[in-house]
Amino acid sequence: MREDYQLQLESINSDLVLMTELVGKAMAKATDSLLTDDLQLAEQVITGDELINSINSSIEERSLQMVALQAPVATDLRILMSAIRMGSSLERMGDLASHIAKQVRLRYPNPSVPEELRETFRQMGAAATKIVDETGRVIATRDADLAEKIKVYDDELDRLHRELFSVVLADDWTESVEAAIDVTLLSRFYERFGDHAVTVARRVVHIVTGEPYTK
Amino acid sequence: MREDYQLQLESINSDLVLMTELVGKAMAKATDSLLTDDLQLAEQVITGDELINSINSSIEERSLQMVALQAPVATDLRILMSAIRMGSSLERMGDLASHIAKQVRLRYPNPSVPEELRETFRQMGAAATKIVDETGRVIATRDADLAEKIKVYDDELDRLHRELFSVVLADDWTESVEAAIDVTLLSRFYERFGDHAVTVARRVVHIVTGEPYTK
Repeated sequence: MREDYQLQLESINSDLVLMTELVGKAMAKATDSLLTDDLQLAEQVITGDELINSINSSIEERSLQMVALQAPVATDLRILMSAIRMGSSLERMGDLASHIAKQVRLRYPNPSVPEELRETFRQMGAAATKIVDETGRVIATRDADLAEKIKVYDDELDRLHRELFSVVLADDWTESVEAAIDVTLLSRFYERFGDHAVTVARRVVHIVTGEPYTK
Repeated sequence: MREDYQLQLESINSDLVLMTELVGKAMAKATDSLLTDDLQLAEQVITGDELINSINSSIEERSLQMVALQAPVATDLRILMSAIRMGSSLERMGDLASHIAKQVRLRYPNPSVPEELRETFRQMGAAATKIVDETGRVIATRDADLAEKIKVYDDELDRLHRELFSVVLADDWTESVEAAIDVTLLSRFYERFGDHAVTVARRVVHIVTGEPYTK
């Protein structure tokens, strides 16, 4: 029974890692579609989000079944509770990648990002892909030190988000108000993506140390 | 034992209703602070969000403890799973009210909303407050018909969100790009607030009918 329980726990953990991989790929593709105005790639991201959602549902279901059937002790209960929460955050990260792809679809065949901001979004995409990769490693290894380190990428995303604001609000901004709003919302999706990754990493620390989870 | 279980379930449900009340008050206050540039009111919303977060944590904890201790059957498991999810959505709605208040604080003592859009935000605030009130009634009564009806307010929020876009993007928009971005983000908070309320109501329908929850 106990051995079986451990196997089930490991399978949930593997699925969380799988979610980070799928979300990472979705984010990389979404950014690519944004920078190359590639409708087909954007559609792939939007369609692919369903798989991410269904893995999340499965994690939720299995975690609760385990809680119900095994009456776990405090630590295991904390692990299962965290798994549900982490799945939920990762699903939301998938949604954000999908939001970016939907913006590409909305503006297609027009470009979604003005030339002068392409480099900023390229960097955002790189930091977002990196942070979710590292989040996967944190889940796989339960390495609390690594969890601390991923904040670097979140800081990078925050910095790029602020940088974009200053470009959009500068006197020499020659694009339309619509373009300003578009890129601000897009940039916010990347910034929120980073926040969710940090939340997931904190959940892992919570499991390892038992420290209360603070938002 | 069984009686005790029912009492605990009712207590969780009451706390969800309490959350809708607190979130509703937070949203009403946040909108007031936005329309009157009232920093003190904004601070109240921001501080008050902690209570909403702590009720959510308590719901999560108690639901999982019940799952662990009582090994509930399918229906009860669905109810407890839904309670966790609903608490999470309501907490997020509290965050959105808090985001609005933080925007007021950021721009204070300057007004956060240009004169010509105040009426739009007044209507958004009214629809948002209304939708969360009704969501509370849906949770309290488990009335699936009422759950359907609250979509009216979500549609109203979507309509106002689109209306705001057309104002901001019109040729006669005389305010700054910064103001355009500010009001777009604010409007998005109201729109997301409505989406989360609909999600909560759908969860209730899911409990009542057992129909699969679709996002």
